[in-house]
Amino acid sequence: MLKGFSVPLTPQGKSALATLPPWHYSSDCVAIEFWADRSAVAAVLPPGLAVDESSAGRGFFWFLDWQFTGSNDELTDPARYQYREAFLLVEAVFEGKPVNYCPYIFVDNDAAIARGWAQGFPKKHASVYQTRSFSAPSPAAAPLAKGSRFGASVAAHGERLATARIQLEEAVPDPSTVFNRPTTMRRYFPQLTAGRQDKPAVDELTMSLTDDLAIVDVWAGSAELKIPEVDGEDMHLLAPLRVGRGYRLGMAYSVTDLRILKNYAG
Amino acid sequence: MLKGFSVPLTPQGKSALATLPPWHYSSDCVAIEFWADRSAVAAVLPPGLAVDESSAGRGFFWFLDWQFTGSNDELTDPARYQYREAFLLVEAVFEGKPVNYCPYIFVDNDAAIARGWAQGFPKKHASVYQTRSFSAPSPAAAPLAKGSRFGASVAAHGERLATARIQLEEAVPDPSTVFNRPTTMRRYFPQLTAGRQDKPAVDELTMSLTDDLAIVDVWAGSAELKIPEVDGEDMHLLAPLRVGRGYRLGMAYSVTDLRILKNYAG
Amino acid sequence: MLKGFSVPLTPQGKSALATLPPWHYSSDCVAIEFWADRSAVAAVLPPGLAVDESSAGRGFFWFLDWQFTGSNDELTDPARYQYREAFLLVEAVFEGKPVNYCPYIFVDNDAAIARGWAQGFPKKHASVYQTRSFSAPSPAAAPLAKGSRFGASVAAHGERLATARIQLEEAVPDPSTVFNRPTTMRRYFPQLTAGRQDKPAVDELTMSLTDDLAIVDVWAGSAELKIPEVDGEDMHLLAPLRVGRGYRLGMAYSVTDLRILKNYAG
Amino acid sequence: MLKGFSVPLTPQGKSALATLPPWHYSSDCVAIEFWADRSAVAAVLPPGLAVDESSAGRGFFWFLDWQFTGSNDELTDPARYQYREAFLLVEAVFEGKPVNYCPYIFVDNDAAIARGWAQGFPKKHASVYQTRSFSAPSPAAAPLAKGSRFGASVAAHGERLATARIQLEEAVPDPSTVFNRPTTMRRYFPQLTAGRQDKPAVDELTMSLTDDLAIVDVWAGSAELKIPEVDGEDMHLLAPLRVGRGYRLGMAYSVTDLRILKNYAG
Repeated sequence: MLKGFSVPLTPQGKSALATLPPWHYSSDCVAIEFWADRSAVAAVLPPGLAVDESSAGRGFFWFLDWQFTGSNDELTDPARYQYREAFLLVEAVFEGKPVNYCPYIFVDNDAAIARGWAQGFPKKHASVYQTRSFSAPSPAAAPLAKGSRFGASVAAHGERLATARIQLEEAVPDPSTVFNRPTTMRRYFPQLTAGRQDKPAVDELTMSLTDDLAIVDVWAGSAELKIPEVDGEDMHLLAPLRVGRGYRLGMAYSVTDLRILKNYAG
Repeated sequence: MLKGFSVPLTPQGKSALATLPPWHYSSDCVAIEFWADRSAVAAVLPPGLAVDESSAGRGFFWFLDWQFTGSNDELTDPARYQYREAFLLVEAVFEGKPVNYCPYIFVDNDAAIARGWAQGFPKKHASVYQTRSFSAPSPAAAPLAKGSRFGASVAAHGERLATARIQLEEAVPDPSTVFNRPTTMRRYFPQLTAGRQDKPAVDELTMSLTDDLAIVDVWAGSAELKIPEVDGEDMHLLAPLRVGRGYRLGMAYSVTDLRILKNYAG
Repeated sequence: MLKGFSVPLTPQGKSALATLPPWHYSSDCVAIEFWADRSAVAAVLPPGLAVDESSAGRGFFWFLDWQFTGSNDELTDPARYQYREAFLLVEAVFEGKPVNYCPYIFVDNDAAIARGWAQGFPKKHASVYQTRSFSAPSPAAAPLAKGSRFGASVAAHGERLATARIQLEEAVPDPSTVFNRPTTMRRYFPQLTAGRQDKPAVDELTMSLTDDLAIVDVWAGSAELKIPEVDGEDMHLLAPLRVGRGYRLGMAYSVTDLRILKNYAG
Repeated sequence: MLKGFSVPLTPQGKSALATLPPWHYSSDCVAIEFWADRSAVAAVLPPGLAVDESSAGRGFFWFLDWQFTGSNDELTDPARYQYREAFLLVEAVFEGKPVNYCPYIFVDNDAAIARGWAQGFPKKHASVYQTRSFSAPSPAAAPLAKGSRFGASVAAHGERLATARIQLEEAVPDPSTVFNRPTTMRRYFPQLTAGRQDKPAVDELTMSLTDDLAIVDVWAGSAELKIPEVDGEDMHLLAPLRVGRGYRLGMAYSVTDLRILKNYAG
């Protein structure tokens, strides 16, 4: 009997990129609020999602240093299971309710790609970095304190896709005032058989379900964000017209389920 | 209208990991014949495939330096589209016909992962290297000539998964005497919704279709191959009991279609 | 006028791998106490250092996640200046005083190689990982608390060079009971001119000077450590005969100077 | 007795990044002729070199896929010894004779950094790619033939430092009409001891000596080259004002010696 939640299925199930949930995550995050062109936001939304007219093109660009564990002490194998991620969220409306939608997302780890695709996150491979906050005091420590500066970047195939910097100003007592929309994605897997290459085998609008969500140590401050045009990427179409606040926070949750909002594939 | 054969679907289709076929490939290859434990071969085969009793556990371990191009001059963007691959094939029988089956495959490129999963190749990310043959004469050149030595290796997450060496002895005039079986794979995409995590959305036995296949400059010689046991991988269960011949060759083909042999999900 | 502390020297000095000190560092560290073969320790010591008879072959294997900054806000460019390191220290005696000596060290960043070579650290390029402690509570968070488990590893060229795991048991109130020896190194730069290839241009015994040293949040616990034999490395000659305690801590210091203990080059 | 040409010196000498010469190299190369601002060329030259007034700012940007071997069959360990390189050469005059000078050079391998620094090449770590020419016929093969297109790029820390493309037009029967200047470098190793940080331990003008130089299969054609401005690099100061011909060739040589032209360190 072959085992594994994802490929490859193998006799003992050790090689599978993803094992069965629960999947547990904890992270440090840098997030930058920005406003993109309203029509560019509309252009990336799948059927059933509409631009949130109250948002006027607002989005967030996130950088995350993740630690993952499943049921096998994966967090003690950081070479395989620790990873970094960057993604762009745009604000939208689904059946009248405010949501985020994720058109672009990058990680530096193949297990994260496999789990992400299963959810609908359209992950690609990239190098992602963010300034960390260390406890040993030093000009290099970047403590969680007024005036600390953090940088973050994502690059793929030798092209810089986004660069951000924030400077902390104040703690945010209630993170739900900032981060309060569920995230929706498009779960998609194509067919290669001739004649069916435009009829995906899987094409669904999904919603991320995050058990035991914890958002901690939120700080806000000033921010910079650049999304330059590079060959082979469309993401710059959502480049910021205006940049808002920058945030630095910790976030954790577990994944055991996925909500399917729509099935496009019929 | 969002565009792309694979995720991410975007307005201009530039960000998609894979664009619509045709997909054209050319490569240099090192391949090592070996025999694994017969029951270990049986254990990786999906339903419908049986051990080839005439093969007695024979397989090939391949290392490939690939160049890819689609319809947009991708070969001039080698940072994005050139890649290296290693895979293991075991010999099997499908409906009485001899085939190969691919239980393990590794690449260093996310576009190759996306195209591979669409075909059924269970690709993971790894670092792959092989000695190259250069035209400028030098002790470092490794010409295609009797006595030249080639090495190859694949590693993931800082673990060496396989290491091979071959020494060329003679040209092989007719490659079809060595490489003559079609390759079958398991195309697989899971569901994450609670209660359906053991019911994949896509689960098919497929066969790779290679248009305009060219196999050139085939040399054979002596070979070594090691597949050590490492944490987090099952591949060593197919470690060689005996190693046969080593081969160095060039191979090219195009992909425009995929044959579905069985639908397990139905 | 060309500028830079290290190569390359350029008109504006931006390209130099290293700029003039001060160099500020803060880190999270995992360190494992172990005992190697006494004669193997003796075999790596340069002239002037002797085995510490009171130590009986004791050493520490360190894994460090570093953040660097100089005088130009380098910490906000983490893609260039954040890095990971692993090194092995053996205990020795110099002129009757207890010291550490560093025979092997690995980093994933070229600026760290350049600064390290200037000090005498014989750095090579590798991939290094350690479990991190995140503030958002989760099974993936690895808090600084009794029972938390941390893993760490270093690999180069697809070979795993060392793997460690620790489990926290108790806080260590006074780190100076554990970490109290200065570190010595061999600063070395060869000549390539024919006839002088055995007469290095620079060959000195040096001592690392760490301004404003801070060691914080020290925890101790049980530990595992493996240093396997791999092709192309001698480090396994110092593989642990016995493993002692494992430590997890924060460390920061600044570098502005280097002490030269001996000049071997004459 | 500790062994190694470079650090680390170890009992068996296996860990050293560089072993004693001879060092043998063979490569495939893409080289683009260009003209930079004359004063920008002057600004990167060390004392003793002058702008070549007959060159008017001419330089070449090279991309090289290298295979290295020493005396221990290193070419069969491609994960450790195969590497890719990109460098910029500007034309200059030393004591009345035409030479090249290398102000910027990038490789993806630490052994290549160690050998390079010993010669005077100011190597930094980067990712380098070039389109390869494969023997198996395919739209992906890029044969050495009129009309074939090759791309090349170099990136470090997620920033694209240079991108080139060439299209082959004709074979070049006599490569010495194009490539005929020896290359000079600045061999440099700093001191870190306070008060001596501006007095390098090694500071020499050197000339690369290439035994058994072979240049083969030279093709010329049209070319594009971009050297964009990025944070943390000065190289764009030499960005092309005009681009000339592009070349694709094979090159091999061995290194056993180094010529010291000047000793700046006194």
